[in-house]
Amino acid sequence: MSKKIIGIDLGGTSIKFAILTQEGEIQEKWSIKTNVLDEGSHIVPDIIESIQHKLSTHGLTKDDFVGIGMGSPGVVDSQAGTVIGAYNLDWKELQPVKEQIESALEIPFFIDNDANVAALGEQWVGAGENNPNVVFMTLGTGVGGGVVADGRLLHGVAGAAGELGHITVDFDAPIACTCGKKGCLETVASATGIVNLTRRYAEEYAGQAQLKKMIDDGQEVTAKDVFDLAKEGDDLALIVYKNFSRYLGIACANIASVLNPAYIVIGGGVSAAGDFLLKGLQETYDANTFPQIRTSTKLSLANLGNDAGVIGAASLVLK
Amino acid sequence: MSKKIIGIDLGGTSIKFAILTQEGEIQEKWSIKTNVLDEGSHIVPDIIESIQHKLSTHGLTKDDFVGIGMGSPGVVDSQAGTVIGAYNLDWKELQPVKEQIESALEIPFFIDNDANVAALGEQWVGAGENNPNVVFMTLGTGVGGGVVADGRLLHGVAGAAGELGHITVDFDAPIACTCGKKGCLETVASATGIVNLTRRYAEEYAGQAQLKKMIDDGQEVTAKDVFDLAKEGDDLALIVYKNFSRYLGIACANIASVLNPAYIVIGGGVSAAGDFLLKGLQETYDANTFPQIRTSTKLSLANLGNDAGVIGAASLVLK
Repeated sequence: MSKKIIGIDLGGTSIKFAILTQEGEIQEKWSIKTNVLDEGSHIVPDIIESIQHKLSTHGLTKDDFVGIGMGSPGVVDSQAGTVIGAYNLDWKELQPVKEQIESALEIPFFIDNDANVAALGEQWVGAGENNPNVVFMTLGTGVGGGVVADGRLLHGVAGAAGELGHITVDFDAPIACTCGKKGCLETVASATGIVNLTRRYAEEYAGQAQLKKMIDDGQEVTAKDVFDLAKEGDDLALIVYKNFSRYLGIACANIASVLNPAYIVIGGGVSAAGDFLLKGLQETYDANTFPQIRTSTKLSLANLGNDAGVIGAASLVLK
Repeated sequence: MSKKIIGIDLGGTSIKFAILTQEGEIQEKWSIKTNVLDEGSHIVPDIIESIQHKLSTHGLTKDDFVGIGMGSPGVVDSQAGTVIGAYNLDWKELQPVKEQIESALEIPFFIDNDANVAALGEQWVGAGENNPNVVFMTLGTGVGGGVVADGRLLHGVAGAAGELGHITVDFDAPIACTCGKKGCLETVASATGIVNLTRRYAEEYAGQAQLKKMIDDGQEVTAKDVFDLAKEGDDLALIVYKNFSRYLGIACANIASVLNPAYIVIGGGVSAAGDFLLKGLQETYDANTFPQIRTSTKLSLANLGNDAGVIGAASLVLK
């Protein structure tokens, strides 16, 4: 039997685990609740215990595994195997994760940032189709990303490569971002960003659109509401959709001109809008890329969903 | 004596050669005229003859060299060692450059695109200070570039990575680019682009600026004229300078958010404006980068001048 890999996706709510083949196929997955009490000091011991329990249940030993890979929030030093500043885990101090896990389990351990790890997952067995040049962008509460170039995950000089949410794209009425600057992709293309745009365009809109009524009634509007209404032809929702698509399309076009990846893969909650989202993007993307890029760099939707994290984490072991 | 490298910078006017140490130090350089007659069929034989002549003059043999590296215009297949579509060399057909040179000289041969090779030169011993993460941007007649990430030159899926001149940055009054789209960095930040901006802002300018008079008199205005006048405080020249800086600063900021290189190195003829150019850039750059990027990715001026090509070409041998 060829050796397996353990992939771990550490999040603020749950810790997802999977046992995978070296081809990236998930053979089994499970999860535990993240215990952030006592400055997150239970997290690593809980991970170790959960793996030990799973191994003993299945009669497996450390020799059945090539390694363990993990994606973590916060600032990850992948060389040292440490994490600091992961506020949703209450990890304020430096956590020697690699040291703790390797000494307990005696299996080689690898770690990287969670957005980077999801990028690796989609690149390897997801929408990236194992092409060595793939950019992954996640549109969720915020906008994050990861860049795989020549088969390698890029970190940059200070670990901030792939910070796609902070590309400046809005020169019309730039909104302040949590990062301290204005006009960031995140302020117009995240779930929150779409609500920002809805408020902006609702103000200058004078027609009878359903979305306008919802705003004026003080109802809570979500990105999903906006996309659903746009699909039905709601006037205001279409204005929001068109501008969201324009901003995101320009960001994708400019990323493509710098990196010429085979795919720019769009994931995260907002990407649930599916082909409707891609269709809107494509027009601006085509208008802002020159022929050689336009024909070689494709836009596509992520297809691993929540599994991207554990799969990408596992791929760290094989790098 | 440790072995040397030969670097070649092939251009439409001249072919530059250098003999370098493996540390990137030029020990000797020379050049010959590029003979583009007969569909550029004399070029490779001329290169071979020039190297043979130099070697025999110095009593050197193939065993004194690790390899030969070359930067070429056109579409370069660095794996196959071929070039096609280099119009300034009149190379319309596929040229098996590697095969020709290796069979004549029996020294291992490596080749890449000229802008990429200049990027490698600046990254290795120029302004990039041998940091593994450096982006190079050349502002000349056009705008080109190269990306070195994790010590590797990025090509992308179709060889178009680093096409920095076609990042869209002008949303004010986008000018048509030779690439077929509008608003490209090249239309506002190349030597030609600066003249484009001068014409744009001269039209709406009503004051007494010297630059305005030159335009109105039908005098030929160059990028250098604009920078020189801006340094002297010319009203219109300052407007052009401010907008040029804004467009270029946004492009640099967005490249930094994607790649977080240690340096974005600015070269090419327009960079002769020196620190005055950097100063203008910095303000927009700072306003469009978030703190982690702003403090770790620096803007700097190229410092190898015309030698970047032969030095970067030589570095191909060591990759």
